Amino acid sequence: MSQESPPTISGYLLDRIAAVGVRHVFGVPGDYDHALLDEIDDHPLLRWIGNANELNASYMADGYARLNGFAVLVTTYGVGELSAINGIAGSYAESVPVLHVVGAPTREIQCRGLPVHHSLLDGDHRHFLRAAEEVTCAVGALTEEMAVHDIDRVVATVLRERKPGYLELPSDLVGLPGPRAGDSVPATGSARGDAGDRVRDFSEAAARLLDDGAEVALLVDFLAARHGARPELDTLLGKGRPAVAVTPSGKGVVDESLPEFIGVYNGSISAPEVRHKVEQADVTIGVGLVEHDLNTGGFTTGIQASRLIGIQPSLATVGAQLFEGVTIHQALDALARLVPAALDTVAPVAEAARPDDLAAADPSTPLSQDLLWDRLGRFLQPGDIIAADQGTAFYGLIGQRLPADVEVIAQPGWSSIGYSLPAVAGAQLAASPGRCAILVSPSCSMPRSARALWMPWSRTWSASCGSARARESWSVPAIMA
Amino acid sequence: MSQESPPTISGYLLDRIAAVGVRHVFGVPGDYDHALLDEIDDHPLLRWIGNANELNASYMADGYARLNGFAVLVTTYGVGELSAINGIAGSYAESVPVLHVVGAPTREIQCRGLPVHHSLLDGDHRHFLRAAEEVTCAVGALTEEMAVHDIDRVVATVLRERKPGYLELPSDLVGLPGPRAGDSVPATGSARGDAGDRVRDFSEAAARLLDDGAEVALLVDFLAARHGARPELDTLLGKGRPAVAVTPSGKGVVDESLPEFIGVYNGSISAPEVRHKVEQADVTIGVGLVEHDLNTGGFTTGIQASRLIGIQPSLATVGAQLFEGVTIHQALDALARLVPAALDTVAPVAEAARPDDLAAADPSTPLSQDLLWDRLGRFLQPGDIIAADQGTAFYGLIGQRLPADVEVIAQPGWSSIGYSLPAVAGAQLAASPGRCAILVSPSCSMPRSARALWMPWSRTWSASCGSARARESWSVPAIMA
Repeated sequence: MSQESPPTISGYLLDRIAAVGVRHVFGVPGDYDHALLDEIDDHPLLRWIGNANELNASYMADGYARLNGFAVLVTTYGVGELSAINGIAGSYAESVPVLHVVGAPTREIQCRGLPVHHSLLDGDHRHFLRAAEEVTCAVGALTEEMAVHDIDRVVATVLRERKPGYLELPSDLVGLPGPRAGDSVPATGSARGDAGDRVRDFSEAAARLLDDGAEVALLVDFLAARHGARPELDTLLGKGRPAVAVTPSGKGVVDESLPEFIGVYNGSISAPEVRHKVEQADVTIGVGLVEHDLNTGGFTTGIQASRLIGIQPSLATVGAQLFEGVTIHQALDALARLVPAALDTVAPVAEAARPDDLAAADPSTPLSQDLLWDRLGRFLQPGDIIAADQGTAFYGLIGQRLPADVEVIAQPGWSSIGYSLPAVAGAQLAASPGRCAILVSPSCSMPRSARALWMPWSRTWSASCGSARARESWSVPAIMA
Repeated sequence: MSQESPPTISGYLLDRIAAVGVRHVFGVPGDYDHALLDEIDDHPLLRWIGNANELNASYMADGYARLNGFAVLVTTYGVGELSAINGIAGSYAESVPVLHVVGAPTREIQCRGLPVHHSLLDGDHRHFLRAAEEVTCAVGALTEEMAVHDIDRVVATVLRERKPGYLELPSDLVGLPGPRAGDSVPATGSARGDAGDRVRDFSEAAARLLDDGAEVALLVDFLAARHGARPELDTLLGKGRPAVAVTPSGKGVVDESLPEFIGVYNGSISAPEVRHKVEQADVTIGVGLVEHDLNTGGFTTGIQASRLIGIQPSLATVGAQLFEGVTIHQALDALARLVPAALDTVAPVAEAARPDDLAAADPSTPLSQDLLWDRLGRFLQPGDIIAADQGTAFYGLIGQRLPADVEVIAQPGWSSIGYSLPAVAGAQLAASPGRCAILVSPSCSMPRSARALWMPWSRTWSASCGSARARESWSVPAIMA
């Protein structure tokens, strides 16, 4: 709400999400969210990005949140929210902070158990909230008395956990008087006390493992990026220059153009030299690892627990020792202070020779997977955003060594086909101007989401440098279907 | 399974659904349901109807179940089932018997809590089953020991309640030995004992209300059709010839070409003469009424409870008296035996004059809502299937007096935009040959489901008599968008 209007509960919600950096709100109109949509239209900092269906809107919000750090999806009750729940579940599995705001029947309708349209007609208005509880880290059914507390609680939890949250907003709460939102989200439920002792304990334990001359390898996954630890990771990498590998879902988290980058570690199906370095190092430091079948070569990770320093968002381990509450930032800082005593001992894997350009390619050469992905790899430039649907597109992509600062938009764990097109559209809205967005999508996926093109975004896309670059220099279409 | 193969658990499931009349199975392949899909392909009575996305598949199953009495939807775990949950919830609200079978990770993966793709990666493999519990009447997570019992329990409950059910089939259960399925579903949990006394009590109470000369009106809703009570309803109507109205969602349940049909009752927004007859009759018999805002003129039903005989699927009321366990069939039979003492006392509303054809229409007449819906009404023939999306399409349709035996495919309560196209496609697969299927869909709805046309059904459609009739006689497109 602008400062001229009297403050309202719904204005508090919108000011709160604007304060955490949201500038675009995704969703689909419905009669229970119309009043809120009017307020979004009037908000000086927010822009409504309408979609033709809720699943695509949720994918778009997911892509936006990956670059922006927070996204908001607005749908109507029942039909709308349930159509988006697959996308929200994907945000949960892939740790993406999306707040789903659902416009719901009035408090009177809910309290009286009236069987209104978009409900199950059984008078129970908590079915969909209970379903949402299964795929979110926090839910709130807003009331006049508790709205401010619940908005702050859910927003703060989404920010802390990097998981989706859910707020149900009865339509008659929109416009009711409320307080003005301050600039910072009050911390709720996140106070862990002083972690100083635990950080010191972690550091000492890590130092004992990292004794002089220990051969060290880093294995990096996407939670490092989601929890904003790229700066600390870069510091550690820049100081110690250890060999560094990424998991499939960790593509793009570290600068793969550095000589110490050795490739993708995916359990027993890794390249042998990568597998050897990650599994046979004296100490492997795992940063933000997420274990699932497609990220571990089918659960064949061969890193001995006794030689692993594990760094999670709010937990660190050294062998069998657990250090609860040590954040990924604190742990990486501590490890960087142990450098250079321990690190800088592993020679990187030599990069495979790759000719500088494709001019020498024989035009009669049949199109092969190798040729296709090699060409895509050459096409990428620092700062690009590249989205790939799970399957051939994603696995083709991860074989390519990425330039610096490439953002990979994918769902290696949740693996919902149809995700990538709306997601890259959302990501592009959050990206700084000039970053190119590229989509690699199989033909089986495009029909699932191509209707997302009925959006203002289609103009953004056609004006992007991605398509221009494609046409003018590489003859690779910006959309590879 | 054919009788030559050794019986299996999955074969038991497929034989069971074939035994209740299923001939087409809807869904989308995914790696957790591949093994089951192979068995469906091999089953002599079942045909797989693949869809491009799960939401459309669930809509298609819903339309099929309305004509067929039972439908089966097969999706994969997580991404697949959650994409269909809006459609399943719609089947719940609209009382449509759809069984959702979900191919899931193996029992070992689930028991060990392994974080596999399409899960939330937190080791909890019950999230989606718990979400499904919110929108179904029965769920089962199949195990080797309990599979047969759970299959029969869920199928029987779906048949009895006319609500969707959910079965999770771990992929490693497919092909394991099981018993052969008998032809009838064992009744489980539905035994209510002898209802003879209660039926007699109901009949006596109804007789006291329906004393000689009482003016009677019938108000009919869709639960009468869902629970297979059209024959008993026709008997009652044919004997007593009472004035009969339908709710908006009751369109097509009674033969509207009969002279005693008076129109649509929708609370305070009904036509005055319909409202008067329904609300001012000495006794109103409500058959299968479903109360919701869009079916009651916004909760403005004006029928006095003391003058209402209410007939629900397994419950009847006479004024304030409740008769639990009296089925809709028993209650309608009992009322028919009270005829003609009480009924046949209300003169029907005269049908508005409608010229026999449109030849006289001035071609320069602007297209209006009145002209459009009048023309559609004339186009309909006995036995047609007509689908209309909620909104202008549905409300335009219900103003038309329907020929006999027209099946209306709509969601007046759940009101999910995009439903009608896939649903009418499913309905047509269940319809006897020669029935024409007609879709009335607003332009805002078609983009949500038009990709459903990537289906074998598109051939059926173009060959249907609907489009031929449209082209040749009325110049009304079979698809009105």
